[in-house]
Amino acid sequence: MGNIFGQSFKITTWGESHGDAVGVIIDGCPPGLEISIEEIQNELDRRKPGQSEISTQRKEGDRAEITSGVFEGQTLGTPISIIVWNTDAKGKDYEHMKDVFRPSHADYSYQAKYGIRNWKGGGRASARETIGRVAAGAIAQKLMKQMFNTDIRAYVSRIHNISSEEITHELTNEEIESNIVRCPDPIAADRMIDAIKSARKNGDSLGGIVNAVIYRAPVGLGEPVFDKLEADLAKGILSIPACRGFEVGSGFDGTYMTGSEHNDQFFIENGNIRTSTNHSGGIQGGISNGENIIISAAFKPTATIMKTQNTVDVFGNQVELQGRGRHDPCVLPRAVRIVESMGSLVLLDHALRHRGQVN
Amino acid sequence: MGNIFGQSFKITTWGESHGDAVGVIIDGCPPGLEISIEEIQNELDRRKPGQSEISTQRKEGDRAEITSGVFEGQTLGTPISIIVWNTDAKGKDYEHMKDVFRPSHADYSYQAKYGIRNWKGGGRASARETIGRVAAGAIAQKLMKQMFNTDIRAYVSRIHNISSEEITHELTNEEIESNIVRCPDPIAADRMIDAIKSARKNGDSLGGIVNAVIYRAPVGLGEPVFDKLEADLAKGILSIPACRGFEVGSGFDGTYMTGSEHNDQFFIENGNIRTSTNHSGGIQGGISNGENIIISAAFKPTATIMKTQNTVDVFGNQVELQGRGRHDPCVLPRAVRIVESMGSLVLLDHALRHRGQVN
Amino acid sequence: MGNIFGQSFKITTWGESHGDAVGVIIDGCPPGLEISIEEIQNELDRRKPGQSEISTQRKEGDRAEITSGVFEGQTLGTPISIIVWNTDAKGKDYEHMKDVFRPSHADYSYQAKYGIRNWKGGGRASARETIGRVAAGAIAQKLMKQMFNTDIRAYVSRIHNISSEEITHELTNEEIESNIVRCPDPIAADRMIDAIKSARKNGDSLGGIVNAVIYRAPVGLGEPVFDKLEADLAKGILSIPACRGFEVGSGFDGTYMTGSEHNDQFFIENGNIRTSTNHSGGIQGGISNGENIIISAAFKPTATIMKTQNTVDVFGNQVELQGRGRHDPCVLPRAVRIVESMGSLVLLDHALRHRGQVN
Amino acid sequence: MGNIFGQSFKITTWGESHGDAVGVIIDGCPPGLEISIEEIQNELDRRKPGQSEISTQRKEGDRAEITSGVFEGQTLGTPISIIVWNTDAKGKDYEHMKDVFRPSHADYSYQAKYGIRNWKGGGRASARETIGRVAAGAIAQKLMKQMFNTDIRAYVSRIHNISSEEITHELTNEEIESNIVRCPDPIAADRMIDAIKSARKNGDSLGGIVNAVIYRAPVGLGEPVFDKLEADLAKGILSIPACRGFEVGSGFDGTYMTGSEHNDQFFIENGNIRTSTNHSGGIQGGISNGENIIISAAFKPTATIMKTQNTVDVFGNQVELQGRGRHDPCVLPRAVRIVESMGSLVLLDHALRHRGQVN
Repeated sequence: MGNIFGQSFKITTWGESHGDAVGVIIDGCPPGLEISIEEIQNELDRRKPGQSEISTQRKEGDRAEITSGVFEGQTLGTPISIIVWNTDAKGKDYEHMKDVFRPSHADYSYQAKYGIRNWKGGGRASARETIGRVAAGAIAQKLMKQMFNTDIRAYVSRIHNISSEEITHELTNEEIESNIVRCPDPIAADRMIDAIKSARKNGDSLGGIVNAVIYRAPVGLGEPVFDKLEADLAKGILSIPACRGFEVGSGFDGTYMTGSEHNDQFFIENGNIRTSTNHSGGIQGGISNGENIIISAAFKPTATIMKTQNTVDVFGNQVELQGRGRHDPCVLPRAVRIVESMGSLVLLDHALRHRGQVN
Repeated sequence: MGNIFGQSFKITTWGESHGDAVGVIIDGCPPGLEISIEEIQNELDRRKPGQSEISTQRKEGDRAEITSGVFEGQTLGTPISIIVWNTDAKGKDYEHMKDVFRPSHADYSYQAKYGIRNWKGGGRASARETIGRVAAGAIAQKLMKQMFNTDIRAYVSRIHNISSEEITHELTNEEIESNIVRCPDPIAADRMIDAIKSARKNGDSLGGIVNAVIYRAPVGLGEPVFDKLEADLAKGILSIPACRGFEVGSGFDGTYMTGSEHNDQFFIENGNIRTSTNHSGGIQGGISNGENIIISAAFKPTATIMKTQNTVDVFGNQVELQGRGRHDPCVLPRAVRIVESMGSLVLLDHALRHRGQVN
Repeated sequence: MGNIFGQSFKITTWGESHGDAVGVIIDGCPPGLEISIEEIQNELDRRKPGQSEISTQRKEGDRAEITSGVFEGQTLGTPISIIVWNTDAKGKDYEHMKDVFRPSHADYSYQAKYGIRNWKGGGRASARETIGRVAAGAIAQKLMKQMFNTDIRAYVSRIHNISSEEITHELTNEEIESNIVRCPDPIAADRMIDAIKSARKNGDSLGGIVNAVIYRAPVGLGEPVFDKLEADLAKGILSIPACRGFEVGSGFDGTYMTGSEHNDQFFIENGNIRTSTNHSGGIQGGISNGENIIISAAFKPTATIMKTQNTVDVFGNQVELQGRGRHDPCVLPRAVRIVESMGSLVLLDHALRHRGQVN
Repeated sequence: MGNIFGQSFKITTWGESHGDAVGVIIDGCPPGLEISIEEIQNELDRRKPGQSEISTQRKEGDRAEITSGVFEGQTLGTPISIIVWNTDAKGKDYEHMKDVFRPSHADYSYQAKYGIRNWKGGGRASARETIGRVAAGAIAQKLMKQMFNTDIRAYVSRIHNISSEEITHELTNEEIESNIVRCPDPIAADRMIDAIKSARKNGDSLGGIVNAVIYRAPVGLGEPVFDKLEADLAKGILSIPACRGFEVGSGFDGTYMTGSEHNDQFFIENGNIRTSTNHSGGIQGGISNGENIIISAAFKPTATIMKTQNTVDVFGNQVELQGRGRHDPCVLPRAVRIVESMGSLVLLDHALRHRGQVN
């Protein structure tokens, strides 16, 4: 259970990291959208590890195939199935951890819940599961662009204790991709890269924060009271592996303001109702108000480290776990792409729901 | 749309703040639970405003009636309907705001989405909507206690810039209820109360943070990958009016740690697998691991203030809005009860899902 | 569980027949629809028993109240709650059956499933539960009329072994209401009424068939492959108490035809694609094709009879059950209204889904 | 939309008949079930065409692969993905029908709904879509057998006007498989086979009825009021291509009985509550009562025939359609397997829901 996301644009992801393949089914993609495998592949390439010196060395070929739902380059309105075969799945690397619960991994909780787990890698808890999300997100993002000219841009705003300058202009994809850490502040980016390299050398890992801005979201998305737009964004973002916190608009910092400081006063600009500040982060009463939607997400440092740790095994013995094999010292640069995907999926899902519900 | 929450223990809330009544339907409550209207009323009384000198003066009678699903004191397994009539709904107080969009309220976004709104009060965006959640939460909490001895305790950990001491012991309900601000640190509580009184005098409002701890949650709750336990908690919490941020475990602060500092090492205690730290906040891989579940929620300062603000009206005119009528300078003490309700609802929903899915 | 129907226009019914009240919540009604309590009451009046000499003598006051979701005569887009208080609930009439399982009633299966039941009447298995469906159906029917000029007309086509003439013209509501058995063939209607009177005299009951035709349904409704329009109609119709069979188009009789006889050939009429016959009953591949949608439903004879029957009690004793109290010898005339309601609910639900999904 | 079936054991099918592949994802299969690809393949082999002289000559290789969710022969509790590549997909056979709407096929309604369709074969409306259902049904059937010793047996009870004798004993799989038409009455079976051969010779097709009996279903399955067990069975069965009618228990024939004839009187047998007749078909008040569950399904004659038919093309021209290519004169023998699958899926889904909801 729990492998389906969305109400009107439903995605189902499947596949263990070291099984045969991973994939996604999209149920509810409107017909007539032009989509090519290249567009999806481009986004997958941005997600995959092994792209730079600061990420894991696992080489994921990640060649996506569309096996249904697209005909002569256009979506049919039927389920779109996208498959990526696992070509670099070396289950043997995990043999020594077969019976050991890695600290802060999902090994123990999966075993406790299901009584069984695929110990050859992270299974469904692996970042590899997110391939399906990114493939579906590429389609969602294209639809939001076509339907409303909406863009979503995520970027790394902090790694460990190194923060980006505040970003106030509209970001482009090029800026974000201009460095391997995906931080649009080049000076901070250099320091972040150094910190990550140093963490790798120490066999340690770093966390941080990803910010995202959704530009030109249509007014009126979000279904109060439980499916508020920020509530569904929060769910989508917190479902990303290693995510531990979510904010919309002023978030936790906003709690230091008084109401008179925090309230976003309305004014008229070119006949449109706007707010002079945007502490609400583009969402009021659970519904988008036309301002930029602003969210951020906290990612803990990766659980896989190369240092020796104390843990227990499935037989109840206290054991030491020696780190070995591949190690991704910081997932934040890749998480950027996954945050964009989840954001796009939530927005499109709400856009289709809204269209069905009101005139 | 969007007024239903949960998969296995589904609640539907209904009612506008200044309509005839508000209420909730619960679909999926197991049969044979003893429940009385008094137990529900007790929890509603903790939620309602007008309880103390620091909250709004709106007196909500809030007498709940159970109109179905309970027979001779026991649940039938059929839908439980709970109704609370609106007795203090003075729509006239809102007459002067009929055509004006209150800043940072939901007036504008509702109008933009639906083309119509009940201007007599906050409608569905009012805190009054949460009555149904609290009534259902009382039942969920009782079931979690009976089934697993699980307790959930929320409290105010910060108001504006006044923080509670860190709480490390298991909280009791009595401690939380020992002062009107529901902060278990009595010294901080006094300062918080002063700050709220002062905000009221200034016609202003304050935000802050509510923490919650779930004690003795069963192992194995949470459905990866999208319905991770923390993802559903995040959705539930972010669906509370005025909530702008969510954390689980180490949250945003955890991003300042390295992996080797953050990882929770396993050990054996009395034959059970435990972790020596709990930065994961009781959830790993989206599944509860038996440790305390720790979450926190940021609430922005209330939008209703008594100061004059600039805004626009429905005709597109720039206008000034004069505050008048009732004013709740800080919703945090009441939010405590709503956070507990949403937490209980998510936990129980997952407990029933888990029971259906595995042996 | 199982008290919610629909995806885009979701209704939740609640209430036991001899509890305090019954009702319905509608989540997903588009905003801006003009609706009055009188319109809903009119449809409820058509559903209620005690209307004529051939139905049960239970007098149901059935005064509906709208307690949310409608403001100044228009829907708000928020949940619509409709309540009907139980005024004629004489639980005492059931005292003698408290411990006895009535044959072909739901007493035993509810007891076996839930371990508890409200023995004061039929509980949720009572026809009284359908009040909420009819109230919601009145709104759905009005929306379908406004949006597409769609009409749905159901009628009694057979009681026991007395069949109506085949109806080939477009039925009006007046024709159906022209006699108390709701059969548009007046000669058959008279014979049906006599048969029902005779069954009442014998303390027995009769079943039969309700046909329904949906005129001017929009093209394109239905979501293959599982939510085919006929599949959701079947589910809706089979969820009506006492329904035991469902047909669309040629139904069971169509199995006696060959493909060349059964196929509906296409032709062009005034620029529209039409079929020269309509064995498909207006649905092909799970999607409406613009022809009349034709369904029929079999209702078994009512389980409540006045004759003595063998049965068992909750203690496992073989006992005799003496019929007494009120007795409805034939529910078909009332079922007409419930079939129309379920049909309208399914159609509208699919209309809103379709609108959200495609351009 | 509409490609997902079930609440607790959710299946999603995907794939066009002449695309690359078809498949299914199962979300909610309990962990720890032993399952092999051979077991699934066996059931697929029973479904596939080209098995005998009376079915279509399309040879479907239909080799299934499990690509996730099973590890070392056991289910993991994670999504199970099963893929079948389309190896015999000759889109060219359809070239001449690219612009023509085949009578009583889904060509026109898909085109009208989506504005686009895969004209190379039936797309999602093809019987090939049911491969995913049968693969998932094989797993559901195995689970029902393991958990409750439940068996489901479907068989052809009528082809055109040739009826099987009434079956009163418990059927075995061997009996059903003892002839190519899957009718356990050998004399009727021979006549049915002759009729089908004759229809093939004439380029025509035949319909008929499939009956199914579910033996040893647990008591208590079904969720009133909308998700009654018969309502979900009806939906599942009506979602099968070419199905036009559904009955449970006495069905349409039961409407000719009076209440005193139809009621199933209770008695005690070996301490269990039983009914002396089973007109209810094992379901009362929407809940299984422990008797055999009896359903039947009407299938119209296949739309594909080899005779010339009048129709229109996508340009609005009246045209003649010449039958050519492959032709399946009667789908009933294959439908047997699909009915069993849908029945198993509905039963298991309700079994898991029930287990989650009550003790």
